[in-house]
Amino acid sequence: MSAGTVGGPRRGIGIVGAGQLARMTCEAASALGITTAVLAENANDPATTVATEVVIGAARDEAALNALAERCGVVTFDHEQVDLGQLAALEERGVVVRPGTRTLEMAVDKSEMRRRLRGAGLPVPDFEVIGRATTEEAFGAVEAFAASHGWPVMVKAARGGYDGKGVWPVPNKDAAHEICERAVAAGTPLLVEEHVPLDMELAVVVARRPDGESTSWPPVETAQVDGVCREVLYPGRLEPALCRGAAELARAVARVAGSVGVLAVELFVDSGRLLVNEVAARPHNSAHWTIEGSVTSQFENHLRAVLDLPLGTTAPTAPQVASVNVFGGPDGCTPAAGLAGALAVEGAHVHLYGKAPRPGRKLGHVTVCGEDPTLVRERAWAAAVALGSAELPQVPAS
Amino acid sequence: MSAGTVGGPRRGIGIVGAGQLARMTCEAASALGITTAVLAENANDPATTVATEVVIGAARDEAALNALAERCGVVTFDHEQVDLGQLAALEERGVVVRPGTRTLEMAVDKSEMRRRLRGAGLPVPDFEVIGRATTEEAFGAVEAFAASHGWPVMVKAARGGYDGKGVWPVPNKDAAHEICERAVAAGTPLLVEEHVPLDMELAVVVARRPDGESTSWPPVETAQVDGVCREVLYPGRLEPALCRGAAELARAVARVAGSVGVLAVELFVDSGRLLVNEVAARPHNSAHWTIEGSVTSQFENHLRAVLDLPLGTTAPTAPQVASVNVFGGPDGCTPAAGLAGALAVEGAHVHLYGKAPRPGRKLGHVTVCGEDPTLVRERAWAAAVALGSAELPQVPAS
Repeated sequence: MSAGTVGGPRRGIGIVGAGQLARMTCEAASALGITTAVLAENANDPATTVATEVVIGAARDEAALNALAERCGVVTFDHEQVDLGQLAALEERGVVVRPGTRTLEMAVDKSEMRRRLRGAGLPVPDFEVIGRATTEEAFGAVEAFAASHGWPVMVKAARGGYDGKGVWPVPNKDAAHEICERAVAAGTPLLVEEHVPLDMELAVVVARRPDGESTSWPPVETAQVDGVCREVLYPGRLEPALCRGAAELARAVARVAGSVGVLAVELFVDSGRLLVNEVAARPHNSAHWTIEGSVTSQFENHLRAVLDLPLGTTAPTAPQVASVNVFGGPDGCTPAAGLAGALAVEGAHVHLYGKAPRPGRKLGHVTVCGEDPTLVRERAWAAAVALGSAELPQVPAS
Repeated sequence: MSAGTVGGPRRGIGIVGAGQLARMTCEAASALGITTAVLAENANDPATTVATEVVIGAARDEAALNALAERCGVVTFDHEQVDLGQLAALEERGVVVRPGTRTLEMAVDKSEMRRRLRGAGLPVPDFEVIGRATTEEAFGAVEAFAASHGWPVMVKAARGGYDGKGVWPVPNKDAAHEICERAVAAGTPLLVEEHVPLDMELAVVVARRPDGESTSWPPVETAQVDGVCREVLYPGRLEPALCRGAAELARAVARVAGSVGVLAVELFVDSGRLLVNEVAARPHNSAHWTIEGSVTSQFENHLRAVLDLPLGTTAPTAPQVASVNVFGGPDGCTPAAGLAGALAVEGAHVHLYGKAPRPGRKLGHVTVCGEDPTLVRERAWAAAVALGSAELPQVPAS
């Protein structure tokens, strides 16, 4: 830690987890002269190279969590694989945890999220909490839900799911039985939801200070493949009226969540109707485009918000922005091998996370800003493909 | 060092020195997934918090330099306080040093720079090399120069000067004698130059690859106080024709220098005539504005150039950009204490270098991009003042 930054604003931040979100948060923190400590499960996690300090330990290792808390003024998060009881204990001891456990309860548990949002009158898909049940209880609940809503239905893990994991479309009784059996055997708490026929998916990220002051970036269209985000487009095919509704809804979600920091809301659009799909109380893949595409990035505003500093403007820097994720190819080739090819693409902002390549692993992203929606997408994809990502079905051209 | 980045492009870069230039280079490297090692004189130097690896040692400590070279694929620089003989020895052993010693000879020695540029037919102020001389020899040379050029003249240290240090305006014989006496006593090699009555000062930064491919950012107007850069304006009062001439001249300087990486050329404008003042073969204060104000920053293009990767476009992201340096105030107060005030200024991009505050020490900078030249300057100054910098005479409004 640099002597010049000791005693900086609120003694800097501590991040539980050291993945790419923590890495990009640390990059933004460095620019602002804010020190960072990360709790890294492995010494070669992405953020370990840029954090001011590294604490090695699991996110649920209480001693490691305490060591992190001692090294910072505010504890914040890279992921949701946390123990809420441990965090509540930290809060009781006076450690500043942002977002706090009341918000994290929603982010770590889909049933809790759905219940709270529905309770606040916000639009979510119809759902029924199953929880931890026997196979027969779970199957009975799914069958009863399908009886009133029709097949297919969606069965979801209430906890531990991300990037499409823990989400099962269920076309019929037989599939329902099989999925319930497997999930119950794994001890997974469940919920069942209506299957929403999607027009498109979009995401809004909101930054919110402890006093409730908030701002949000313009909504973006996202394209998922197998539940994993491949592409983010600003503004994509989103009409202004839909954007206004989405921004209002996302800010309402942030209020209900009582969030501090950034909070991402993933939304379904079904025949013009907006429904909250997922909520993440941390920087989010759908707003990586803001690093170059907005005056203030989600990472910088996350820092500002959790340190209770004034939020920066979220105005876009260009009329069109495309951001495409980079995944490990089947050959296990490192994306760094394709760096020259990617950087030869005009305007390509390449971000690589320093992760060991594995097939399908998210290793980086590319953002391109410009005037022409087709051109920015083509360029972002060209650079991502140069970095080894397979070209995949894209969202329809706007 | 992260396992995922080992074996990245050319095994990453090593930086001699760990000041703010190294720090911002490391921030850019992190985004690209490029590993960094820095040779830091002190464990709390600015770049130590963000570099992948830190080697502690002086820039002229041969063992430390070797240790740095072992940890990277390319050696590059944060400053010019280097030993060219040691670097030449590294090059002979096959270590890739960029910029190379041929370029650094020019950057570390003003006499050599002036001689080479004049030899190549490029415009520099009239000068005479004095070198290491006795007081009487030095005084004689200054007097002879003044006899043909008139008083005042400029006496300069050929080596070791930066930020206005080692530059002495000399109004008359008495002053000349005193300055020669002091400089000779300190063992400083000297040169004497004509005093150029300035209309304004400008700077151009050029990025150049090993094969000579180069690009440059638009020229900027700079304002120095006591030889220290306070403010950088794009485009300032610079007319397009002058900009074209300045860009051509700067690229010619980079060619003569045989530079690889970024090279900054500071220019005088005297009655519309451009003269090369200073040359720095590294990222430069006059291009910090490019972090937000250009599609590709000087730090990213320095990395691309020294790693022989395609250069990124240097197009500005806004019609007007102002960048104002932040200095330690007389109270020794840390700029972090003013962070909330600075971030409350709309569009203020704050960069703090994590340096211990001392009166007059360069601690950070603020950049604002926009449409209105007056507004961007006002905002950049407002944020810099909030961070503790005294408001100082600015360059005239454009």
